[in-house]
Amino acid sequence: MIELRPVFYFLGILLMALAAAMLIPALVDSSVGNPDWEVFAASAAVTFFVGTALMLVSRGPVETISVRAGFVLTTASWVVVAAFAALPMTFADLGLDYTDSFFESMSGITTTGSTVMSGLDDAPPGILLWRALLQWLGGIGFIVVAVAILPMLQVGGMQLFRTEFSDPSGKVVPRVAQLASSIGTIYVGATALCMIAYWIAGMPAFDALAHSLTTIATGGFSTSDQSVGHFASPGIEWISVLFMIIGSLPFLLLWGAVRGRPVSLFRDSQVQWFLGIVVAGVVAIALWQWLSNDRALGTAIRESAFNVTSIITGTGYASTDYWQWGSFPTIAFLIFMFVGGCAGSTSCSVKVFRYQVLYTGLRAQLVRLMRPHAVFVPQFNGRPIPGSATDSVFVFFVLFLLIFAILTFGLAALGLDFVTAVSSAATAIANVGPGLGDVVGPAGTFASIPDAGKWMMVAGMLLGRLEVFTVLILFSPAFWRN
Amino acid sequence: MIELRPVFYFLGILLMALAAAMLIPALVDSSVGNPDWEVFAASAAVTFFVGTALMLVSRGPVETISVRAGFVLTTASWVVVAAFAALPMTFADLGLDYTDSFFESMSGITTTGSTVMSGLDDAPPGILLWRALLQWLGGIGFIVVAVAILPMLQVGGMQLFRTEFSDPSGKVVPRVAQLASSIGTIYVGATALCMIAYWIAGMPAFDALAHSLTTIATGGFSTSDQSVGHFASPGIEWISVLFMIIGSLPFLLLWGAVRGRPVSLFRDSQVQWFLGIVVAGVVAIALWQWLSNDRALGTAIRESAFNVTSIITGTGYASTDYWQWGSFPTIAFLIFMFVGGCAGSTSCSVKVFRYQVLYTGLRAQLVRLMRPHAVFVPQFNGRPIPGSATDSVFVFFVLFLLIFAILTFGLAALGLDFVTAVSSAATAIANVGPGLGDVVGPAGTFASIPDAGKWMMVAGMLLGRLEVFTVLILFSPAFWRN
Repeated sequence: MIELRPVFYFLGILLMALAAAMLIPALVDSSVGNPDWEVFAASAAVTFFVGTALMLVSRGPVETISVRAGFVLTTASWVVVAAFAALPMTFADLGLDYTDSFFESMSGITTTGSTVMSGLDDAPPGILLWRALLQWLGGIGFIVVAVAILPMLQVGGMQLFRTEFSDPSGKVVPRVAQLASSIGTIYVGATALCMIAYWIAGMPAFDALAHSLTTIATGGFSTSDQSVGHFASPGIEWISVLFMIIGSLPFLLLWGAVRGRPVSLFRDSQVQWFLGIVVAGVVAIALWQWLSNDRALGTAIRESAFNVTSIITGTGYASTDYWQWGSFPTIAFLIFMFVGGCAGSTSCSVKVFRYQVLYTGLRAQLVRLMRPHAVFVPQFNGRPIPGSATDSVFVFFVLFLLIFAILTFGLAALGLDFVTAVSSAATAIANVGPGLGDVVGPAGTFASIPDAGKWMMVAGMLLGRLEVFTVLILFSPAFWRN
Repeated sequence: MIELRPVFYFLGILLMALAAAMLIPALVDSSVGNPDWEVFAASAAVTFFVGTALMLVSRGPVETISVRAGFVLTTASWVVVAAFAALPMTFADLGLDYTDSFFESMSGITTTGSTVMSGLDDAPPGILLWRALLQWLGGIGFIVVAVAILPMLQVGGMQLFRTEFSDPSGKVVPRVAQLASSIGTIYVGATALCMIAYWIAGMPAFDALAHSLTTIATGGFSTSDQSVGHFASPGIEWISVLFMIIGSLPFLLLWGAVRGRPVSLFRDSQVQWFLGIVVAGVVAIALWQWLSNDRALGTAIRESAFNVTSIITGTGYASTDYWQWGSFPTIAFLIFMFVGGCAGSTSCSVKVFRYQVLYTGLRAQLVRLMRPHAVFVPQFNGRPIPGSATDSVFVFFVLFLLIFAILTFGLAALGLDFVTAVSSAATAIANVGPGLGDVVGPAGTFASIPDAGKWMMVAGMLLGRLEVFTVLILFSPAFWRN
């Protein structure tokens, strides 16, 4: 039997914290006289009540959490938070039913950024702030999970990132708390810097706050239907590029950089690959826009830098309807969705280190074909990669694509057109945000997707965010046996 | 240094054989008074001359061929045959330049079946027979390579199919000759049966011959622009389904079945999976056509059986323009392209046994996550899979998809639209034949693709047919060093 008591205990605490977070939009709405504050207050009360009850019935000493309980806790956290965070959206007068609200809320805490809402420019501040807060909390929550829990669970090659924080023996709680405070400092600091920069560049204070929350989280929810394009400001776009990239770097290394070791950040091979891929992608699309679509070179570079960075990092902002750029950029964007940022960041998708491991695996295979008796030790960041990690990464990648194919299949069976089905599936599993095409592209929303499709996408977002195995393993009967 | 003398020697013999094959269409054209016979005769003369020269300058005793020379010989065979087999198409009055002809001829010997030609219904018999013959020769050629050479080269998990024919020690030539004669008997027999069945079902004798050659080879070239749909005959379509499936079964097991051990064929787990996948695909698409597109159930089953089998086996016939069926069948067909038949058959793409190995690899990974100290031995056909074979298959799959992505990228950069670029890349690497959409779909041809795109597709066909690694390894500088 898996000891589920500590799981329930932590879920209770999580809900109590979520309830506290709901008071922020309640305060904001009440300060501008918007009646939605009651909706947030009521949702907070319900959430707090359920959380307290859960905590009380399952309280007791928690020294360690078993690996299997770790899987349950991680997945359950995202599902439970999404379920309760959706309440204010259903209760508010937004015309969203619970399916829509759950979609929006899961899209928030998985830092996806796909939305079913339009008319954001006239939406009350409470709900806009709530969406942004969900992404921000989802972002920091995932970093903690990625640094403290996934390496212990050995999911998808994450064992490469074992640190003192992810040693399965000993007391989990104090270490996670210590870690959360270091990373939290960086996270809060980067968010504040981002907000100030946006504000100086001319964004209204509220928009600057909301966008800073969703930039650092590589989330992508905006306060305008036109996303960041609404502000029509090159300065704001370049600031956004910078902070989307910061949000995609390994936060433990950022913490080291702030504490006086910036070199180790740029010596990290994952960081080098990530920046190289972003630059290559930006250059390729800028050249296309300049040469094929006759954009001025400067505009082409800025538009490419903003939108390509947004897609590769899985943020999902748009400065323009890039679906109109033609089929080469479109297909490039679809492929970029499968890149992602660095492990230990808020970013999503396959992530760069997995491509590094895949590459060394390919090389090892070629060497083996040529010289069957040669020994080739694949390395990551100058250290040998254990065979089990390479296996995990290959299995992860194949499974990621398999789920992408199944999601595409399912969405197409609901009658969605080719581009909408393919890109919705990709954007869900890769936690990017917008899809491609006229329906779900950067100029559209997911409102018109059938309910069944929304639930499929919700499942895709959850699988993508929690690195597939964390969720999938719960469906194995063997997992629940002794 | 790699000893290339035996490679040139065999290439010389191959060209001499190709020249002999060119005399068949020459005879046919001359018998109906078509002036193309001169084109074939001249091409045969050139090919024979080059082949003889190559053989003579490199003759000498050939006892064994090294592994590395095996890689060179395999890839060079397909390239050299395509280059010379294209000659009659360029010289004949078909309006094809050498790029078109090379595309058509590579599409032929890789049993892909993509065509740049239209007006097939009025084309002279020689050229139609030549296209069919190329597929037929490419089919048997690949089976021999897959059974005798690839297991020795350990490409993409093919080491699972080591037999007495693929032992790298000892004399290669006599064993390959013995193998070619067993498999050749089955191949010729199945082709003859198929031709007779087509003819009895009402196909004119010449069409029956041409289609039998391309059915058994799972090639897909037809004698009509409407492909097999031209004959509008349910009987012919069902015969085609049967023989496309036969062409996708392991020929060594077919040989065993003919010699009195039919049970071993159906006990083979790859055969079971393959038939299961075909049936599942046919049922899914038939249900869609029946329920969503209001086709009569019988028609829906037949149309689904024919076109789904054609795509899964990589044949590429069409009985109707299935691009019009809607987005679910279309996306399903795109995914089916990546299935393929059994190893040791004429069929292409990823192949079923690799999915079996991927599946056991996924299961092993889940078990390891749950029970880090448990031992799980993946099996294939009741025997343990060596770890190196599992690795090979994962690397193969990732590389296959990577090349698919790069091809798509490249085709889109030439300005092809989304569906055309994606489906042309898929159909090339998977050696299927038609793409999707209005341009390259079952009702179109590849004539309008820019020359650079045709060469990309040629590279894709070659990589796909020779299981990726066989070709790719030649581009590694280390391969050519000692």
